[in-house]
Amino acid sequence: MSRTLKLTLAYDGSRFVGWQRQADGESVQAFVEEALSRLEGGPVAVHAAGRTDAGVHAEGQVASARVTFTHDAATVVRAANAILPAEIRVLAVEDAPPGFHARFSARGKSYRYQIANTPVASPFLRGYAWHVPEPLDLDAMRAAAAALVGTHDFAAFQSTGSDVSATIRTVTRSDVLARGGLVVYEVEGDGFLRHMVRAIVGTLVDVGRGWRPPGDVRGLLEGGTRAQAGATAPAHGLTLVKVEY
Amino acid sequence: MSRTLKLTLAYDGSRFVGWQRQADGESVQAFVEEALSRLEGGPVAVHAAGRTDAGVHAEGQVASARVTFTHDAATVVRAANAILPAEIRVLAVEDAPPGFHARFSARGKSYRYQIANTPVASPFLRGYAWHVPEPLDLDAMRAAAAALVGTHDFAAFQSTGSDVSATIRTVTRSDVLARGGLVVYEVEGDGFLRHMVRAIVGTLVDVGRGWRPPGDVRGLLEGGTRAQAGATAPAHGLTLVKVEY
Repeated sequence: MSRTLKLTLAYDGSRFVGWQRQADGESVQAFVEEALSRLEGGPVAVHAAGRTDAGVHAEGQVASARVTFTHDAATVVRAANAILPAEIRVLAVEDAPPGFHARFSARGKSYRYQIANTPVASPFLRGYAWHVPEPLDLDAMRAAAAALVGTHDFAAFQSTGSDVSATIRTVTRSDVLARGGLVVYEVEGDGFLRHMVRAIVGTLVDVGRGWRPPGDVRGLLEGGTRAQAGATAPAHGLTLVKVEY
Repeated sequence: MSRTLKLTLAYDGSRFVGWQRQADGESVQAFVEEALSRLEGGPVAVHAAGRTDAGVHAEGQVASARVTFTHDAATVVRAANAILPAEIRVLAVEDAPPGFHARFSARGKSYRYQIANTPVASPFLRGYAWHVPEPLDLDAMRAAAAALVGTHDFAAFQSTGSDVSATIRTVTRSDVLARGGLVVYEVEGDGFLRHMVRAIVGTLVDVGRGWRPPGDVRGLLEGGTRAQAGATAPAHGLTLVKVEY
């Protein structure tokens, strides 16, 4: 008898090549599969809601796996965390309906991007925020961010070389917040293209620096190309916060 | 013509043997002295307000140094940060009166100690909080913490083997706060004995776990010994927040 598990995971992405297994380097997926395989006594495949890139963090990544072991949720959490490195934690485990798949069943995701907007970079944020020392025009960034809300073609914010042709996505929240020396971008939507949040942040920071007007965003959503949007912001400022089902 | 500089420093203490130079390992002092010596073109000695232990962090450490170079403050900040590793940042530099000494001129210090009080340890706090998974009685901890305010003999909270005989200190603030999954202890005083904050936190966590009553603190301040107080809490939860002059 197999069962489908839904795992909620947090990880510090600093040392990993990303969620997905790669030919070289340590992936989060490989560690989680190894931990569950040891509980299973045989191979277990684990699928994540979002395949976070190298350096990207997660507070609420969700993964699914089919297993046959019968341990209760608390035991799986404890046993998996005893095997996993401290950078990866299983926060919760629950049984999911048989057809549940962390990626294909996801209805929405939320991300947070942190910008350290102080003259000197805090040593505590060096792995968790993009350091932009020059003053940023938050009102301009907010106007640009607000223009992203709705259903649009986000092709201009997709990584070059991506082969995804369906580039329409719906963004339900797109907010720029100031918290002490941090400028925080919070975004929610039904799905995100590869590098989409980081390309948005690169564009918002261009706006904040006064390098382009907030109104540019509208043009980018109406047939713009990747080259016209801002640079891809560094991975280490990004955190996958939550996945909705 | 020499001048006395007052430097405000932040550092992530994770990889260092502490502030002070040691026979082995990398110290914060050695890096800061090396940076200033390169600007000076000759050896510079740097004295810190508090000689933080291995693993202890600082948001507002203060150090003093006598130099002869004439660069303005902004130039020193920029040049020193270009030389220092990213874990150490010079936040500010100013000229101080000739007799200024970061340690002997200090009139007070404040520290923060973070306890991660969640069933599963957050991967983002592993270097910055002591993970205590069991529920803590915050009211009991607050009562115990409040008893520390005032002028007392803190000998019971001094590291064993310490040769300091004057163990009277004045604590002006001693608060236990809850912030999400964190229990935060904030303490201010005119000075702190070696390991004093960590021994206090070890004792407060004993109280929070119900292993001893809050009233024990009063007894420890009235002739208690180090063995009677709680264990020394781990270094990585501690941050030197500010030094007052």
